[in-house]
Amino acid sequence: MASDISEASPSTAELKLQFAPFSSALEAGFWHELTQKKLNDYRLDESPKCIKGYYYNGDPLGLPTRLTLEYSAFDVDGSTPARCCPALGTLYNTNTLDAFKTTDKKALLEKEAKEIWDAIQSGAALKDPSILCRFILLTFADLKKYNFYYWFCFPALCFKEAITLVRPPSVLDQVFSAKQIAALQDAYDGLCIKTGATAVPYFLIKYTDESVQMAVLGDWETFFSDTKKVTVGVYDPCTLSQHPGWPLRNLLMLVANQWGSKLDTVEVLCFRDRTLQGSRSIQQSVIFHVKLPELPNNSACPKSVGWEKNPKGAMGPRMVNLSECMDPKRLAESSVDLNLKLMRWRLVPSLDLDKVINTKCLLLGAGTLGCNVARTLMGWGVRHITFVDNAKISYSNPVRQPLYEFEDCLGGGKSKAMAAVDRLTKIFPGVNAEGYNMSIPMPGHPVNFSQTTLSQAQRDVEQLEKLIAEHDVVFLLMDTRESRWLPTVIAASKRKLVVNAALGFDTFVVMRHGLKKPPNTQSISTEPDSSPSCSSASSSSSTPAGAAPAVPGSSLFSNIPGHKLGCYFCNDVVAPGDSTRDRTLDQQCTVSRPGLAMIAGALAVEMMVSILQHSEGGYAVASSSDDRMNEPPTSLGLVPHQIRGFLSRFDNVLPASLAFDKCTACSPIVLDHYEREGFSFLSKVFNSSHSFLEDLTGLTLLHQETQAAEKLMFV
Amino acid sequence: MASDISEASPSTAELKLQFAPFSSALEAGFWHELTQKKLNDYRLDESPKCIKGYYYNGDPLGLPTRLTLEYSAFDVDGSTPARCCPALGTLYNTNTLDAFKTTDKKALLEKEAKEIWDAIQSGAALKDPSILCRFILLTFADLKKYNFYYWFCFPALCFKEAITLVRPPSVLDQVFSAKQIAALQDAYDGLCIKTGATAVPYFLIKYTDESVQMAVLGDWETFFSDTKKVTVGVYDPCTLSQHPGWPLRNLLMLVANQWGSKLDTVEVLCFRDRTLQGSRSIQQSVIFHVKLPELPNNSACPKSVGWEKNPKGAMGPRMVNLSECMDPKRLAESSVDLNLKLMRWRLVPSLDLDKVINTKCLLLGAGTLGCNVARTLMGWGVRHITFVDNAKISYSNPVRQPLYEFEDCLGGGKSKAMAAVDRLTKIFPGVNAEGYNMSIPMPGHPVNFSQTTLSQAQRDVEQLEKLIAEHDVVFLLMDTRESRWLPTVIAASKRKLVVNAALGFDTFVVMRHGLKKPPNTQSISTEPDSSPSCSSASSSSSTPAGAAPAVPGSSLFSNIPGHKLGCYFCNDVVAPGDSTRDRTLDQQCTVSRPGLAMIAGALAVEMMVSILQHSEGGYAVASSSDDRMNEPPTSLGLVPHQIRGFLSRFDNVLPASLAFDKCTACSPIVLDHYEREGFSFLSKVFNSSHSFLEDLTGLTLLHQETQAAEKLMFV
Ligand SMILES: [Zn+2]
Ligand SMILES: [Zn+2]
Repeated sequence: MASDISEASPSTAELKLQFAPFSSALEAGFWHELTQKKLNDYRLDESPKCIKGYYYNGDPLGLPTRLTLEYSAFDVDGSTPARCCPALGTLYNTNTLDAFKTTDKKALLEKEAKEIWDAIQSGAALKDPSILCRFILLTFADLKKYNFYYWFCFPALCFKEAITLVRPPSVLDQVFSAKQIAALQDAYDGLCIKTGATAVPYFLIKYTDESVQMAVLGDWETFFSDTKKVTVGVYDPCTLSQHPGWPLRNLLMLVANQWGSKLDTVEVLCFRDRTLQGSRSIQQSVIFHVKLPELPNNSACPKSVGWEKNPKGAMGPRMVNLSECMDPKRLAESSVDLNLKLMRWRLVPSLDLDKVINTKCLLLGAGTLGCNVARTLMGWGVRHITFVDNAKISYSNPVRQPLYEFEDCLGGGKSKAMAAVDRLTKIFPGVNAEGYNMSIPMPGHPVNFSQTTLSQAQRDVEQLEKLIAEHDVVFLLMDTRESRWLPTVIAASKRKLVVNAALGFDTFVVMRHGLKKPPNTQSISTEPDSSPSCSSASSSSSTPAGAAPAVPGSSLFSNIPGHKLGCYFCNDVVAPGDSTRDRTLDQQCTVSRPGLAMIAGALAVEMMVSILQHSEGGYAVASSSDDRMNEPPTSLGLVPHQIRGFLSRFDNVLPASLAFDKCTACSPIVLDHYEREGFSFLSKVFNSSHSFLEDLTGLTLLHQETQAAEKLMFV
Repeated sequence: MASDISEASPSTAELKLQFAPFSSALEAGFWHELTQKKLNDYRLDESPKCIKGYYYNGDPLGLPTRLTLEYSAFDVDGSTPARCCPALGTLYNTNTLDAFKTTDKKALLEKEAKEIWDAIQSGAALKDPSILCRFILLTFADLKKYNFYYWFCFPALCFKEAITLVRPPSVLDQVFSAKQIAALQDAYDGLCIKTGATAVPYFLIKYTDESVQMAVLGDWETFFSDTKKVTVGVYDPCTLSQHPGWPLRNLLMLVANQWGSKLDTVEVLCFRDRTLQGSRSIQQSVIFHVKLPELPNNSACPKSVGWEKNPKGAMGPRMVNLSECMDPKRLAESSVDLNLKLMRWRLVPSLDLDKVINTKCLLLGAGTLGCNVARTLMGWGVRHITFVDNAKISYSNPVRQPLYEFEDCLGGGKSKAMAAVDRLTKIFPGVNAEGYNMSIPMPGHPVNFSQTTLSQAQRDVEQLEKLIAEHDVVFLLMDTRESRWLPTVIAASKRKLVVNAALGFDTFVVMRHGLKKPPNTQSISTEPDSSPSCSSASSSSSTPAGAAPAVPGSSLFSNIPGHKLGCYFCNDVVAPGDSTRDRTLDQQCTVSRPGLAMIAGALAVEMMVSILQHSEGGYAVASSSDDRMNEPPTSLGLVPHQIRGFLSRFDNVLPASLAFDKCTACSPIVLDHYEREGFSFLSKVFNSSHSFLEDLTGLTLLHQETQAAEKLMFV
């Protein structure tokens, strides 16, 4: 039987039509549901059951022609996913492995083939052509070991001779004008609406240069006035350009049986309907012109084929062990994965999902921003999320901080970091979340009251250093400016990507910090842009060669490579600890417009994902507002330095600014002191007034020079 | 005693300094916590307890000088809200009403006054001036009826004679230059950091034209070189321009006691630090020049005053009954309210919060968009939220739909509408949420299979009509275009504000539908803009007078008044039911970038809130991208017609377009048929192909004319 299944190998004999067989795709959900049915419903009942799968005609080239069964397969009256075509099947679930092995597969196939043939002969298949695309599934569920044995069959009636191609296959847009293609698409959508189906598997087509008409199979006699030229259509799950998928086989048998003697040749449209990056195209549909062999005069059922080969290419059953993923938690995981894969398959084939999913994210702050960032990360499938916060949940939090509920506020309130972890686990048990209820020491906030406070600060610093080292991306989501200083320094030193978000009342900033070159390259790169990871992208940089920028980052510069971008403190000319500046942006978080944190949190994650898709990651040249009209640098779009949002105007701008050589957080002198002296340097910063950092970086001198210059100017 | 409390009435005798007394502000949370303490901790213990309140020096003019106690009052070592000044107090909680009444209030006050006086004399008050601003709270908690009796006292030591003003008070910016003001602000912030406090209650000041220096009270001797001119500062919670608040009283007593003989006059800065709409100002701080009376030579404690008057203006206790709000749920409500009020008090004094909070919102769709819209509405304090959805929660939903958790997916999944209601209640028990698990009939989706399906459709329509009538704003948040048609028609007919949001893969649209004029005005308004509600705003409208727009809405028109704006279907030249158009925007909701729904959901609510703040509501002229540089029409900013967002570019544009007179949803002919024929018209739409609506509105004719015109052009 195996030898009869036509393979999708390109061109063995040019003139024979060959069909790409279905591959069965059984989601873990299907086996979970089968287990439930077996335990609660079927028990020892081995009688055949009706089940439902579906296939899709919009996959990108290269994916196999899949027939998918998921947990919904047992709900035959349930809905089918949008734009997918349902296929009904018969499930034979045996009670023993022996019964599975000894089941007469030939008889099962012939029984099903006979039903199809009878429906063709009686005309029933004309009225309901879905019978032409049925399947058989033979299973045995070993529920002790969670071994599932199965064998799929997609019955196809065979002509005695080969179906010949009158001419080579053509892609639709080689044959149809743009106008005809648009009309064809219109006509198909109309047919779906008329029949109330998500997809029509088989249909009739009539067209002129001006218009395209479509009808269901049953309307053949009234639809085609002459049979010189007859076009039939099939919703085709195959992605190969030279071959149709399996569903066409039984349609051609029906056509031959019903009208074979009247037809000269038959034109076949394999309708493929792809939507990629938001734009729909049916252009890659394929047209075949075939001559059908004559059927014998007797009405005996033709020979049939259809049992699926196993992964080794031999005729035989398959087995899957699901002992690790039979609980609903695993089910949730595979559903979330499937959803993300759909995004890739249908919209952005070049998307590197693994890069996103495997990113370890450290969220400093579990308030309004932290909650929203965590939720968006979950949506992207990120599995490793760690929270740091020292606050407790208060009664006004849950309506704005979407990981907390009223109950979390009782009894003085749970720790935010811990409650956030609990919630993530409740949302998606597969997440790997951790919480740290700890403070982040801040400049100008002395820690030297006693030996106890000093040791505590040292432990906090060490913990934070360890956490930053263990993660890939650090999100700064606190509600004070000062608390961002220490993680900015540590992450800059460890070359970790930092994504920073801060809120005003109706404005926000979301930014990535500049990512310093690796320490080894930095020491030797006295020439500008000598780092190989940046040279290609920053070739057009307008930064003066070798000159460190002498003024606070300016957005006049374009094409700034990632390693030259500023941090959150680069634009400030005073050290953190003095809360005069940016006070409105940081300290009024609780009185922001409620939508603001959702927008900023979502943008922070989306910006991170876009950066991860860039081949240079955090070293990528910053996109600016001006780049909005240019070809985007990643499959997801721009990779800006900053997004500054203005809710009152519903506007965002994308400034980019250079690192400031006197920055109190990321300048070489600060990093150098931190790397050489460690906590003894940090504790000086914590315990001193802001002038300490300003003296160190030369900001004090700059102030004095500026004042002197001002005096000079106004003499 | 009462007669001794100086009142804040403006100018009785111009030369006497009078102080605005504190008003006690006890949040429900305070009484809740007191109840817990009494029940679990104090029991019959009547000994005095230390508690903590706080006051704020940034309230807008008109608010009383409040000393606030909330549930945190019992956690004396806990944190104080940002920029507020803590005040310690002594709680005397009696076991009986009789004990409350017979407590010797004079003795309590004198005891406290004596402690203050002793601290002044010993110099302890110099080291820790917080003793100068203490309070007494006498309470009795009747926990059977939840009656709370209380009397507040803010002890102040009195001079024998009046304190005289040397000259009239001045507002800071009448006396200080901008440079001095900036330096003053800087110096104060520096002092806060140095002392590690959220606010410094009392301080010393020295200034020149060029600089301002500050020090704590204890540094007096080293700080002031001569005492000819001495300036002291007080963190002043009063908002009146002619009077200082209460905290200054004991400071002046300290100054007189410590240095009285050396001082000629004292300059007092009442430091007031207001942040309004994101910009901080200390300019309204007030400067007084006072001459202090001499103190008697003996060290006897001066007379003291301080018991608060009751609401009738008499000396006596107050009582509050909290039987309705003693459970934690009420506590959550008052916390959420307080948070919103802070937004108004500190940032947007003209914000009409009640208008927002009392808006009844109907959410059609409880998926990604519905969940995010509901969360943002909760953040704004909206209490009445109703969901309509017919879907069940599947395993892939919780990571993207922030009202659901893994558990909601088990056993086939809960109804989204119902689960959303449960979740809102868990987040905020005070919400008034309802869910309807029902379908919305759609054009081109026949309902006439049987009498049962037809009756069901009729019931669904009636239910939807009822729901729309009962709500103020209708959110369209479904994932198909067709399902938006019926609510668009009903809401247009009922003149309800519609906010519509739809997602593509990385693009979205958020829009308000045009709000038709009320039916009675419409019949008589054949002249353009005769409606009084629109005439003022739309006077510069460039729409041709009286001419209905003949082409689908164009964004070339500016200043379109709300009643002329288009709906979701106005830009379409085919009827809903044909899902060719906008397919990518509606049908791929599940494969949107995860952050997109959060952004669009948040913007939909923020746009609604902005519209509600406009005096003309949904009739307001639409703001466009060009208006971003103009004076915004509301305190919250623009009121656009549409926000179209592009996540790949992090960009939003604000197109505005006119209603289309052949629109298949909001045109007069459709509304007229709906209003006259009701369900019999609707069922025709549901059961027919899209040509029915196109024929009705004249779209078919338009198509034919366009085709004829095209033919003519290409002859
Ligand atoms: Zn920096
Ligand atoms: Zn319309």
